[in-house]
Amino acid sequence: MTHPGEVSLVTPVREVFSATLNLASGRTLAGFELITETYGHLNAQRSNAVLICHALSGNHHAAGRYDLSDPKAGWWDLHVGPGKAVDTNRFFVVSLNNIGGCDGSSGPNTLNPETQQPWGPEFPQVSVADWVMTQAMLADRLGIDSWAAVIGGSLGGMQALHWAVHYPDRVRNCVALAAAPKLTAQNIAFNEIARQAILSDPDWLAGHYQREAANPARGLSLARMVGHLTYMSADGMSDRFGRDTREGPSNTINPGEMVFQVESYLRYQGKQFSTRFDANTYLLMTRALDHFDIAADFNDSLSEAMAVTSSRMLVIAFSSDWRFSPARSRELVDALLAAGKPVSYAEIETDAGHDAFLLDEPHYTGLFSAWMQRVVI
Amino acid sequence: MTHPGEVSLVTPVREVFSATLNLASGRTLAGFELITETYGHLNAQRSNAVLICHALSGNHHAAGRYDLSDPKAGWWDLHVGPGKAVDTNRFFVVSLNNIGGCDGSSGPNTLNPETQQPWGPEFPQVSVADWVMTQAMLADRLGIDSWAAVIGGSLGGMQALHWAVHYPDRVRNCVALAAAPKLTAQNIAFNEIARQAILSDPDWLAGHYQREAANPARGLSLARMVGHLTYMSADGMSDRFGRDTREGPSNTINPGEMVFQVESYLRYQGKQFSTRFDANTYLLMTRALDHFDIAADFNDSLSEAMAVTSSRMLVIAFSSDWRFSPARSRELVDALLAAGKPVSYAEIETDAGHDAFLLDEPHYTGLFSAWMQRVVI
Repeated sequence: MTHPGEVSLVTPVREVFSATLNLASGRTLAGFELITETYGHLNAQRSNAVLICHALSGNHHAAGRYDLSDPKAGWWDLHVGPGKAVDTNRFFVVSLNNIGGCDGSSGPNTLNPETQQPWGPEFPQVSVADWVMTQAMLADRLGIDSWAAVIGGSLGGMQALHWAVHYPDRVRNCVALAAAPKLTAQNIAFNEIARQAILSDPDWLAGHYQREAANPARGLSLARMVGHLTYMSADGMSDRFGRDTREGPSNTINPGEMVFQVESYLRYQGKQFSTRFDANTYLLMTRALDHFDIAADFNDSLSEAMAVTSSRMLVIAFSSDWRFSPARSRELVDALLAAGKPVSYAEIETDAGHDAFLLDEPHYTGLFSAWMQRVVI
Repeated sequence: MTHPGEVSLVTPVREVFSATLNLASGRTLAGFELITETYGHLNAQRSNAVLICHALSGNHHAAGRYDLSDPKAGWWDLHVGPGKAVDTNRFFVVSLNNIGGCDGSSGPNTLNPETQQPWGPEFPQVSVADWVMTQAMLADRLGIDSWAAVIGGSLGGMQALHWAVHYPDRVRNCVALAAAPKLTAQNIAFNEIARQAILSDPDWLAGHYQREAANPARGLSLARMVGHLTYMSADGMSDRFGRDTREGPSNTINPGEMVFQVESYLRYQGKQFSTRFDANTYLLMTRALDHFDIAADFNDSLSEAMAVTSSRMLVIAFSSDWRFSPARSRELVDALLAAGKPVSYAEIETDAGHDAFLLDEPHYTGLFSAWMQRVVI
């Protein structure tokens, strides 16, 4: 039994890797663990595997539920399941929590095997390249020589692009949603404010909060408020919240008092996030975002980078996404066209901002589904 | 002696008002003080007075220096002085620190006369209406029946609009730069994040930090970083900072380490601000911004509000200002036109974002100057 339209009940799997991992930063991990989920069945030719790469706050739980009573399905259940864009009747879908994450894979909140203490701030900085390398090791273990598709939105889209550029013979189709070839100064600045919010929280304790049974919840909450706000569009926020107030007439104005609906909403989002996410992971993930630059190894030429890809490419941007604007996606598309590569591009008209890739916008869903149906397995 | 192009050396003046002030919030102040500056000379007819209204972080020191050795002139010296847009050879210019401010006028960091302790968080919430009322009391004292012009940018522009709507017979010309009839949900959300940054700082001490000789510098710094970032444009930031790094190669990535120039810049701005500004004032000022709505007393009809004005109006917006976008200025202009009022509007092409009104953008300066030259005195 399962919820209608969802994959069967899901059980996460832990994959333990004992090989030493040489990270892009120059540091090493003496082995690591990945927590993963799969949906659908790998075919006999092992040709129908699809990799889902998660974004900043995502994890391995992309679709389905662990228990029928779970109130919510995985974070991308709208697009991963039987008959959905990433159709689990056709595809064997692999999803994982990246290293440095906080949902089970090796990361700041797991134990450092050398000290048997939580890694905390001593977990090494990771990069998109490191994530893709570990994803390739996971593919090896699962017997997947080449992915039918690698798919991701936002920071996940950057991983998909890195796959296409650095492992061209292992990716037959690549989907980059609401992504960018690298961050702008403004993007970096928003990430930096989020980091400073965490670093300024006295409960951060130089990153050793877990050891001290503390949590920099205020900083993490602020970081999330900043992030979440930038994932919405101004028009979308006006439509949703306007200037509606929550309690009291609008002239009862004392500092800190909850007045506008949008304030209440953001505080709630921040607070929820601060109970489920790890502050050190937030620092690592935003740094990985900042440092990603798909053209860095190609003389800063995006078309030189795209020239080495051999995947069929789908790039989708969202009109009101001002964090990773359509202009950034068009840079990718222009570089792919300049390199003579097969690319489809769509700019979806929506007020949903950057978060639109997580939602069921009709044109987006239709286009994404149709494109995925043409993925040869 | 003075710096070339600047007003003569300036001396701030303290104006003490003993009348009880009934604030829009319903609370009262048993008297208050305003710190003011004036530039130029009031003519015999008292017809050449111009009022400058400051924005969130501004104060009374709009032009000139206190001492020849001051490293910087007032915050709007580019536009206030002999031969400048606000020409002190023609106009008698009045500038003040609004109540609730932190630069000398009655506010959270001044003494509550009843307790002889700093007001701190007990200073009443103030509004744009309160500020304009106190500015009108200042005009009375100075013998100014009607202003040749009331001028402001951002939150200052809102004060200028309030003057034009609520004191139409006392304003002959009104200039609203980078302003808006009211904030959007997104604007309120940015203000709320700034407030939460302050309120989350353990040194905020429920607002009584001054009494305890503390300062919520981390929160205030974060608040400023958020604000400052939103006053710049994405393109402007890309041109200015790009992805330039400050120290170490970009792969030496440890959390909190300074890497990108834009991070270093924002941290510096935040830190500087936290040493000069008062956190309780920041809370009050952002709340005043959030609650401003020029149409609120006019059945939420902007054109009904504009219909009661009798000033010649100048509205200027800046193309890359996404905090108070040109669309918000056009709402004002459309309402003024609908009401049959004389309005000039310009949208200045610039990458400087919201802060452009503080800068010397050639088209802006030229247009503003030409319009001010046609102000009849």
